[in-house]
Amino acid sequence: MLDAACATAETGAMLDVRPVGYVIGLLLIVLGVAMALPLAADIIAGNGEWPTFLETGLLTGLVGMCLALACSNGVRDRLSLQQTFLLTTSVWLALPIFGALPFVLGTTQLSYTDAFFEAMSGLTTTGSTVISGLDFLPEGILLWRGMLQWFGGIGVIVMAMVFLPELRVGGMQMFRSEAFDVGGKVLPRAAEIASKISIIYVGLTFACGLAYSAAGMEAFDATVHAMTTMSTGGFANYDASFGVYQGVIEYIATCFMCLAALPFVLYIRLVNGEARPLFTDSQVRAFFGIAATLVATVAVTLMIVDDFAPEPAIREALFNIASILTGTGYASVDYMAWGGFIVAIFFFTGLIGGCSGSTSCSVKVFRYQLLFTAMKAQIRRIHSPHGVFRPRYQGRVVTDDVMSSVMAFFVLFVVTLGIFSVLLAMTGLDLVTAVSGAATAIANIGPGLGDRIGPSGNFAGLNATAKWLLAAAMLIGRLELMAVYVLFTRRFWQI
Amino acid sequence: MLDAACATAETGAMLDVRPVGYVIGLLLIVLGVAMALPLAADIIAGNGEWPTFLETGLLTGLVGMCLALACSNGVRDRLSLQQTFLLTTSVWLALPIFGALPFVLGTTQLSYTDAFFEAMSGLTTTGSTVISGLDFLPEGILLWRGMLQWFGGIGVIVMAMVFLPELRVGGMQMFRSEAFDVGGKVLPRAAEIASKISIIYVGLTFACGLAYSAAGMEAFDATVHAMTTMSTGGFANYDASFGVYQGVIEYIATCFMCLAALPFVLYIRLVNGEARPLFTDSQVRAFFGIAATLVATVAVTLMIVDDFAPEPAIREALFNIASILTGTGYASVDYMAWGGFIVAIFFFTGLIGGCSGSTSCSVKVFRYQLLFTAMKAQIRRIHSPHGVFRPRYQGRVVTDDVMSSVMAFFVLFVVTLGIFSVLLAMTGLDLVTAVSGAATAIANIGPGLGDRIGPSGNFAGLNATAKWLLAAAMLIGRLELMAVYVLFTRRFWQI
Ligand SMILES: [K+]
Ligand SMILES: [K+]
Repeated sequence: MLDAACATAETGAMLDVRPVGYVIGLLLIVLGVAMALPLAADIIAGNGEWPTFLETGLLTGLVGMCLALACSNGVRDRLSLQQTFLLTTSVWLALPIFGALPFVLGTTQLSYTDAFFEAMSGLTTTGSTVISGLDFLPEGILLWRGMLQWFGGIGVIVMAMVFLPELRVGGMQMFRSEAFDVGGKVLPRAAEIASKISIIYVGLTFACGLAYSAAGMEAFDATVHAMTTMSTGGFANYDASFGVYQGVIEYIATCFMCLAALPFVLYIRLVNGEARPLFTDSQVRAFFGIAATLVATVAVTLMIVDDFAPEPAIREALFNIASILTGTGYASVDYMAWGGFIVAIFFFTGLIGGCSGSTSCSVKVFRYQLLFTAMKAQIRRIHSPHGVFRPRYQGRVVTDDVMSSVMAFFVLFVVTLGIFSVLLAMTGLDLVTAVSGAATAIANIGPGLGDRIGPSGNFAGLNATAKWLLAAAMLIGRLELMAVYVLFTRRFWQI
Repeated sequence: MLDAACATAETGAMLDVRPVGYVIGLLLIVLGVAMALPLAADIIAGNGEWPTFLETGLLTGLVGMCLALACSNGVRDRLSLQQTFLLTTSVWLALPIFGALPFVLGTTQLSYTDAFFEAMSGLTTTGSTVISGLDFLPEGILLWRGMLQWFGGIGVIVMAMVFLPELRVGGMQMFRSEAFDVGGKVLPRAAEIASKISIIYVGLTFACGLAYSAAGMEAFDATVHAMTTMSTGGFANYDASFGVYQGVIEYIATCFMCLAALPFVLYIRLVNGEARPLFTDSQVRAFFGIAATLVATVAVTLMIVDDFAPEPAIREALFNIASILTGTGYASVDYMAWGGFIVAIFFFTGLIGGCSGSTSCSVKVFRYQLLFTAMKAQIRRIHSPHGVFRPRYQGRVVTDDVMSSVMAFFVLFVVTLGIFSVLLAMTGLDLVTAVSGAATAIANIGPGLGDRIGPSGNFAGLNATAKWLLAAAMLIGRLELMAVYVLFTRRFWQI
């Protein structure tokens, strides 16, 4: 029976989707079980909202169980590249479909469009929200929003460390070092890395929550905000986002947002006793170099143009640059009022992003480094036109394969931004809302620019088409574009 | 003496800039002599403005002569790559410096900032203007604006066919076919190609002028507009740009703008009896495919959303898409009023551009083709991870060198756009003006978006810093970025 299926797959009749269904089924069970936590939170808070999570948890878990059972006869250790591609996108589609249910059935009473948008925004760690009146929501829903981002965050790291290198998407194959070479055995390797990363991720989240708590945040808010900080997600428990926490909490958030945007593989090495790489890694240094330059520019502008005192200027510059550069998207103030220069800086800062293998998104620092390395090699050719200059990154030669993936990523990023901007404008949005909305979705940042979707706005007022488009853009951006686009090529489906 | 200089150059003491100075000197003499034409136009029109051109012509010619004489002892057939780079940028800096003089001394009485902006906008074929009241200007100044663009246009083609392939800038080395291999002998080859191209360029300009004239344009306007059409420059003789020519003239302009955006090498082959390549060239086909899709989208939108009758909808769609896609930048109406969707389409259309080796600018169709070819090769790797797939373009294998140059171009284009947007916003411009201003300058299109610099606006109201920034962006964009940036690397100046 199994052999027959394999033979079918090999002779090219059809793609065996059972391993994909099996993994999605297992993850849905996990998602359903996870709903026990907001259920418990609602029971403890005594707000009578817990039946929502009981219903959605049972539904999600049962669907997952059926799917897993139905597909269990197709499970194998080794996934083909096609199956891996299909799995990556399917997971990020299936989880929001069920993760949206509590928003529909709970007090928020969202339409399914809004609920799916919120769940996709959560799991992709984008953090754009359609819910207003956050301050008055029951604990369960707020915790669920935080948990979606937190799970999304660890999913992103595992994807970046196991799936994308295997799929050669966006130049991530550069990080397919000996230690992480999976040789097709994607799933066992994913589980192994996920467990290692989990310890670090849980530890950092715990530290972040404690720090928030010590600085005066209430325990529940500290928990949820720690989850959305470490996942660079950016969902907050208040309509004013971080506007309710001026002062020391902003410094703490800045620290942990930056920690969340560093390559998690360096933390694994730190735990293994190798502290050096964390300080010598060229990507980390470049990240902090970029951040420092931007913070200095913004702080000076705030002092000179907007008459800020030095401390608030530096604090707001630190917090907002960290928030946008790491793609977290917390807002402490309505920075649209700070003038065109700062708004323009913030827009382009969002297109930089954090480091590879972290929870942050966007183009990411290592891609810019690789691109500039390639340009340097080009300039060297001026003097020796026939010399061969191999671009190097962190001591290793960058292969043409990596370079062309990075290039493909960059081009697709810009082209995708253009296409989504035009499509969003088609739904009736003005140019700034359309372009910044597309950018914030693809780069998984959260707030856009302008009155409607800016730091003081909310995505609820957009029409349904725009919301589905933005949800699609979040998914495409989170999966580094190519992983999704490949599914739309005829060649992909040929076996 | 000459040997001593060569020896100096070879031992690395300093770069021999005399060949560069010599060529610039010669070109300044040509520019000075060319001022005889507007001089003549002013005499014929009898408006008493001719002394301006006598002064500036003599000044320019004399400076050129002195420079050429001073550098004549360093003239050689062969230029080093460094000298070629230096020459390319220097020419495009020196000509506007002197080309600006008539605007300062003539009736326009511009400040030098404004005059330089206008001259740079002319020679780079950008077509953004700071002059209002065009309708009342003397013939000489209007002709001079047209001539700057016309000379700029042929300069661009020669640069694209001889200089950029030699400099390996932006992937243009792909067009360094046997026939055009210069082996370092850039100058003789440039003169040879310029003379061949000139015949075609003059012929097409003449045909365009005749067509305009036959459709009812006055002879003088037909001459100037033919010059600014064939150079995809976009300077017009009226503040309303092409708004004064509704109807058949728009169709004629559409045709000739498209002709100006095709690879001129195909016209040479057409003259040599090879008509086929013009119709089978994949870049030409892609260009018309893109144009047709955009025109259809815009025309349908104008009919449905803006209640246009079919003929005006198709005409305005044809004219405006051709104008923006080829980077000409004529405006027939204030399309800002057509709604966000069309404005967004126009913005991103400007980032596509025409074909290589034409007078148009921006990213250009062949680069997108190459980038998508590379992505296709990537997708093929999914099925055969260890297969080697060489991207091919027009039957030839695309080398890694070409690919990395194209990639460098694309990345630099986006990064340059970002940096200039931020710098322009710093001078106090709003986001839409800053970003669209940077884009229109780098892509050498002409009009931006918004009230200030949109199709019905004018660049005169910007501050001086913004004007210098935009002039720099025009130069950088016109020279395909890398040709300018190389001069700012330390390595370039090491011999
Ligand atoms: K985010
Ligand atoms: K133009």
